[in-house]
Amino acid sequence: MAGTDRSRGADPGGEAGPAIVLIEPQLGDNIGATARAMLNCDLHDLRLVRPRDGWPNPAAVAMASGAVSVLERARVHETTLDAVLDLELVLATTARERDQAKTVLTPRAAALHLRQHVRNGGRAGILFGPERAGLVNDDIASADLVINVPLNPGFSSLNLSQAVLLIGYEWYQTSQSGIEPRHWGASPPATVAEQEFFFGRLETELEAAGFLFPTHLAPTIRRNLRGMFKRTALTAQEVRTLHGVLSALIKPRS
Amino acid sequence: MAGTDRSRGADPGGEAGPAIVLIEPQLGDNIGATARAMLNCDLHDLRLVRPRDGWPNPAAVAMASGAVSVLERARVHETTLDAVLDLELVLATTARERDQAKTVLTPRAAALHLRQHVRNGGRAGILFGPERAGLVNDDIASADLVINVPLNPGFSSLNLSQAVLLIGYEWYQTSQSGIEPRHWGASPPATVAEQEFFFGRLETELEAAGFLFPTHLAPTIRRNLRGMFKRTALTAQEVRTLHGVLSALIKPRS
Repeated sequence: MAGTDRSRGADPGGEAGPAIVLIEPQLGDNIGATARAMLNCDLHDLRLVRPRDGWPNPAAVAMASGAVSVLERARVHETTLDAVLDLELVLATTARERDQAKTVLTPRAAALHLRQHVRNGGRAGILFGPERAGLVNDDIASADLVINVPLNPGFSSLNLSQAVLLIGYEWYQTSQSGIEPRHWGASPPATVAEQEFFFGRLETELEAAGFLFPTHLAPTIRRNLRGMFKRTALTAQEVRTLHGVLSALIKPRS
Repeated sequence: MAGTDRSRGADPGGEAGPAIVLIEPQLGDNIGATARAMLNCDLHDLRLVRPRDGWPNPAAVAMASGAVSVLERARVHETTLDAVLDLELVLATTARERDQAKTVLTPRAAALHLRQHVRNGGRAGILFGPERAGLVNDDIASADLVINVPLNPGFSSLNLSQAVLLIGYEWYQTSQSGIEPRHWGASPPATVAEQEFFFGRLETELEAAGFLFPTHLAPTIRRNLRGMFKRTALTAQEVRTLHGVLSALIKPRS
């Protein structure tokens, strides 16, 4: 846990920042530069999903300029889902608009949202796609919110580590002034694992009912359903209610 | 002048951004990466004071990732003073405190100050020192104000181009207004009538399945379900999808 790392005492709030989740990063250089940018911004939790050149990677160490602590603590995951199971709030970064109903925040608005979530005891993560292609639609659909960096529309392509730096910078700035915590209801937010268990059950039932048809549209239908629920930021209690609703609806009628 | 460059129409204010003045930059790579970061932020006026490896520099072109227009317009100067003679407002960047009486601004405060100056018809520039040593005291003394980027005090060293990016990013943000949050997705939001029709159908089915029981809790359950969906701000298309989901779930299984 970042909270036990003495090097992170820099954040006056004493709060563990969001995890940085790199999906299929290609160059070790970029992973190293990302670790450096993270430590600049007092971020310590790096997660790698299917890094192309395996892990550990000497090229990453060479580019980290001393941010080795971040690389040493990095964890590797097989899927995006595995990488975020312990989090309640997941943000996706993207440079271009997708055909999905999503709320898109600037890094500044996202940082305030993240700070509030963490200040209330939550854990959060930010997804970054591979260097060239960016995140696939399924990864974006699984996120609660999208971050888009406002830059020159005629030349907006950022290096991976620069994108991490800008978003980390905004996160760090929110530690610099008194932001009043907001309070949610009594029920804590649902973890990704809790949400996924419900989505899985719902999809199984819809599949059995022939709703995910024709087959080539099934991924879109799944994505739209998830997108709808993700926007809600479900609490753990609400996920339990939804399980009850589902059980009630599929029960054979007398 | 940046004002005559058609590529800079991106800034809604139509204002020429501050000049970026690199004092004794050492690596062509860093000059190229700086040009890229500048164009990301709609900055076009690059000035080089005594670049170590001369000018032009092929290494800079290789790292500019297409921001060649900035490199082509770059001018070389013999002294810091020569580089800033046409400006009225000069800011110096530094990572460490100096023994000088100076006002130190964050990048955000500096960007607002720069925007006001430029909006009033003024011209401004920002000094960046050599990669390792930073600006000499005389260059800082000649500046009107100092910019310091708030970052993890235990690990605050930034690459030259990253420092330019963070400050350019803040400049660019001052050209943006009222843009958060945005929403993707073409489908218009559902009317209250459309939402209520779905809630009514859902509740009828839940009632039939015995889910709204015991009776005295039914109002709370209804309220929680509505609250969950209301938070999502459903689109009309999503309400149609939910009708399909409901129909599929209540269909008798063969």
